Amino acid sequence: MRGACYNSDMTKGKFITFEGPDGSGKTTVSKAVCERLAELGYPVRYSREPGGSEIAEEIRDVILDPKNTEMDARCEALLYAASRRQHLTEIVIPALESGIHVICDRFVDSSAAYQGYARGIGVDEVLKMNEFATGGFMPVKTIFLDISAEAGIERIAKNRRSLDRLDSEDMEFHNRVYQGYQEVLKRGGDRMIVIDASRDPETVTEEALNAVLEILNG
Amino acid sequence: MRGACYNSDMTKGKFITFEGPDGSGKTTVSKAVCERLAELGYPVRYSREPGGSEIAEEIRDVILDPKNTEMDARCEALLYAASRRQHLTEIVIPALESGIHVICDRFVDSSAAYQGYARGIGVDEVLKMNEFATGGFMPVKTIFLDISAEAGIERIAKNRRSLDRLDSEDMEFHNRVYQGYQEVLKRGGDRMIVIDASRDPETVTEEALNAVLEILNG
Repeated sequence: MRGACYNSDMTKGKFITFEGPDGSGKTTVSKAVCERLAELGYPVRYSREPGGSEIAEEIRDVILDPKNTEMDARCEALLYAASRRQHLTEIVIPALESGIHVICDRFVDSSAAYQGYARGIGVDEVLKMNEFATGGFMPVKTIFLDISAEAGIERIAKNRRSLDRLDSEDMEFHNRVYQGYQEVLKRGGDRMIVIDASRDPETVTEEALNAVLEILNG
Repeated sequence: MRGACYNSDMTKGKFITFEGPDGSGKTTVSKAVCERLAELGYPVRYSREPGGSEIAEEIRDVILDPKNTEMDARCEALLYAASRRQHLTEIVIPALESGIHVICDRFVDSSAAYQGYARGIGVDEVLKMNEFATGGFMPVKTIFLDISAEAGIERIAKNRRSLDRLDSEDMEFHNRVYQGYQEVLKRGGDRMIVIDASRDPETVTEEALNAVLEILNG
């Protein structure tokens, strides 16, 4: 992978990411969009970090290990960046260079919103550090599935039996994540495509698909 | 841990690191210095990353996993930084704040020499990224055990039965590490204390001990 002057505009395949708060339907919608694209004959791959890279997977295990409650927020951010780097060089870039479009569920913007803003490290600091991981490589466009923290959590709650983790502290955290995404949107500028994700998944998928088709054919 | 304005000058305990190429005797000498300090009644702790932090240990396992041959150099650098961060907040800073001096075998300078210079990422880039991990927290002084790449490797070879890994490619890498340390010395300025490590370990330990005593009593 080359330096900062190399970005996803220059690859044959297009790199498009999906972002949004928990419960926004990112995974459902991005997978559905991917399937529809494949049906339409586009060479496309769905991915999310660690996305099939064994090393990135091992790193992910450390992050998610439930016994690691003592993990420092910056350590967590560095681990996400390490996993991102490996996933990018091992999976994403080779696919893009061979002409396959990659639809990725979360990328740098998630770190900005979650670790940078919600965990309080600072968006600038987290973005700067992530540049070391990505070499400045960014998606051509990012679809932001917009839903309030409350509505997102309510949707998750409906699909789960246990509500244990959705306590008041979590709600405060999810509110900060939403505010973090507002900051991400502001900084992302033209790269960001905002879709109202409070509607039914079929409508959201349809709208997201049309946005992606416009990117691929534009 | 606070931000960049907080450094090891301000803790009750002093943070002193040992650096040097492979075979310079860092571990032997720094441990011996630590033991001598303890005998003299100084509150002191020897450490090296991951140094007893379970999370840092898990990260280290990912870095050293022999099946991870596909690991990208930047991913490796991020993992070292993550492990460093956790070791620093969980082990080093609490010790320093409680008045215990910490003698640490390798720190940021190693990343600058190995990943920054020898692996070719760039010293500036690696140092900038490591600032995210350390918040600018640096040792009051660093003892650099100076030995040429050849002499260091020769010393390691003498203590080993197998010479398999010490092939010509390794030698080239070790030469780059040595050059990397020259760059580190230039940037470190007054923080660096250079000791000729080509002499017998007793002489080197004695000289290192005197340097450390001067720091602690100065």
